[in-house]
Amino acid sequence: MEISSNGKPIYFNLGFNPLLNLIEKNNYSQVFVLVDEHTSELCLPILRDGLGDFQNYSIIETQAGEQHKTIDFCIGIWNTLLDFNADRKSLLINLGGGVVTDMGGFIAATFKRGIDFVNIPTTLLSQVDASVGGKTGIDLDENKNMIGTFSIPEAVFIESEFLETLPKREILSGFAEIIKHGLIADDVLFDQILNSNLESIHPDLIIKSVTIKNKIVEHDPKEKGLRKILNFGHTIGHAIETYSLQNDPQPLNHGEAIVVGMLCEAYISTVVNKLTPEELNIIVDFLLKIYPKYSLEENAFDQILLTLAYDKKNENHQLMFSLLNRIGDCDFNINVSNELIIESLNFYQDLK
Amino acid sequence: MEISSNGKPIYFNLGFNPLLNLIEKNNYSQVFVLVDEHTSELCLPILRDGLGDFQNYSIIETQAGEQHKTIDFCIGIWNTLLDFNADRKSLLINLGGGVVTDMGGFIAATFKRGIDFVNIPTTLLSQVDASVGGKTGIDLDENKNMIGTFSIPEAVFIESEFLETLPKREILSGFAEIIKHGLIADDVLFDQILNSNLESIHPDLIIKSVTIKNKIVEHDPKEKGLRKILNFGHTIGHAIETYSLQNDPQPLNHGEAIVVGMLCEAYISTVVNKLTPEELNIIVDFLLKIYPKYSLEENAFDQILLTLAYDKKNENHQLMFSLLNRIGDCDFNINVSNELIIESLNFYQDLK
Repeated sequence: MEISSNGKPIYFNLGFNPLLNLIEKNNYSQVFVLVDEHTSELCLPILRDGLGDFQNYSIIETQAGEQHKTIDFCIGIWNTLLDFNADRKSLLINLGGGVVTDMGGFIAATFKRGIDFVNIPTTLLSQVDASVGGKTGIDLDENKNMIGTFSIPEAVFIESEFLETLPKREILSGFAEIIKHGLIADDVLFDQILNSNLESIHPDLIIKSVTIKNKIVEHDPKEKGLRKILNFGHTIGHAIETYSLQNDPQPLNHGEAIVVGMLCEAYISTVVNKLTPEELNIIVDFLLKIYPKYSLEENAFDQILLTLAYDKKNENHQLMFSLLNRIGDCDFNINVSNELIIESLNFYQDLK
Repeated sequence: MEISSNGKPIYFNLGFNPLLNLIEKNNYSQVFVLVDEHTSELCLPILRDGLGDFQNYSIIETQAGEQHKTIDFCIGIWNTLLDFNADRKSLLINLGGGVVTDMGGFIAATFKRGIDFVNIPTTLLSQVDASVGGKTGIDLDENKNMIGTFSIPEAVFIESEFLETLPKREILSGFAEIIKHGLIADDVLFDQILNSNLESIHPDLIIKSVTIKNKIVEHDPKEKGLRKILNFGHTIGHAIETYSLQNDPQPLNHGEAIVVGMLCEAYISTVVNKLTPEELNIIVDFLLKIYPKYSLEENAFDQILLTLAYDKKNENHQLMFSLLNRIGDCDFNINVSNELIIESLNFYQDLK
């Protein structure tokens, strides 16, 4: 299956022949593949097989982990490209999770004012989230995705085979974004999610999830309006993620933090928007069934509020939330007070 | 006078009321003005006067000089913006020469995936060159403009008043780009240039020069074809500039290096393209009359050829030149051998 996103293709489980065609059509001067130490070991062999006789590319390896999505690593990779004498007709293939595709996209978008790039997301999270929308980015100290661009890859390849390389915790992290897509835009998808088998994510859930996100970002590429509904769960969720990274020896991953964020923001949706208490219960029961409860110390609240004050989605110093109307529908640009945010954190804390 | 460039206005000598209108219309949350230590002293008072009652902006000062157009300075300014709690509805006004507008444009284009920016070029060079085309960029070690984006400012303000703050050597640097615009696209402009008064550059020369560049970049925004003619003089010129920066205690400025590049490339145009020896003589006589002769040691040649091998305009490892057909017309994508490049450097060296 294939869909079009901003005029460029996203391929689902079609193998890498379309990549070979793209490389041939554009007559790239050089092809680079960016990997981290995990995808180098687990995913590169799959890509290598898929490319058949075409093995004329250079591997650039970076370090795995959000803490390496920094400008220093970009400088290292820009210099590596220069050492290889990469020109503007070069192609960069990003093979990895969100760290590799976000950072690789930024590196490509800014190297010599922009070279072509292709994303091959290898985690469930990056397949359903970073695969569409053209967001590239790196962190600036503890500030996530503070520096970046909107840049569209020439193609995206989503292959279920890569998911077999992932531990269950990684699968659940990506599954949180699929849940979000159901909650904000599609109650039928949400019903499917409630009844799905977590041991093996059905490709149909991935395709539906990507298609929902794609419709939203095509309608609003620069996040001026509708696209903000994709931030449901992510305002508080990002702040929780930052807090956990800074304070926990075993920090939450992205999906786990977003689950906490979705629970808090679903609670706020019930208080200030139209989500019913019954719907809130359905969401709470399902998420607590499959995700571990995070224990949030009360002295964390100030730090979370401070992180929220720096959220890049803020406008005119106002914290803007996207909140559910019902399961399958979401509003955006709703201002929420610090008091209500704290109330929602307390709500989460009290969940059993 | 006002022209449109990529849908955004360039204002000539109209003062800053249109800037006030832009700020009011877009309801920016905060306004920042990026200056260097020179424009802070010499140009900021002019802007301040021009903005009348509106004085609600924050000044960010960087250091003057190409050697500070680096990622380290970007990191410092990104962090300053964060310290000010700048959000996506912020505006960055770049007040300065090419270093400030190139780097400020890149900072704005990548901060939180892009905020609006306005350029107020204050040198003749940046008024006639960096003012149109949307190129932003910084250097990576000794590699000029290696990292950047194509991003269009919301408006550009070209004010002759700023030129009164400049030493003559700076004026001549910018004048080299005006000469280039005549050589590649407009023989009538070139005639005006031959007869112009260098003590006070007539605004008409600036407007014509910007209009020529604007027509070219609007036709080819991403430098796929025609836009390459703007590189006339810049292939060898950039390499000379890099060489001089690395080796001379008092290095050439951009325009002076481009003049050397134009003389070499005019020579090559006569050898492999249709520029007549008579036209070459006119160009040589005029440029040597107003620019100092640079004495190029023969042991510089290897270093210059090495820099050329890294030029970001290269494709498939081929050095591509833009060469004159005649005064007022230029071709692009012409491959030139290293032997002919050396011959042209010897030609320059032998000029009296």
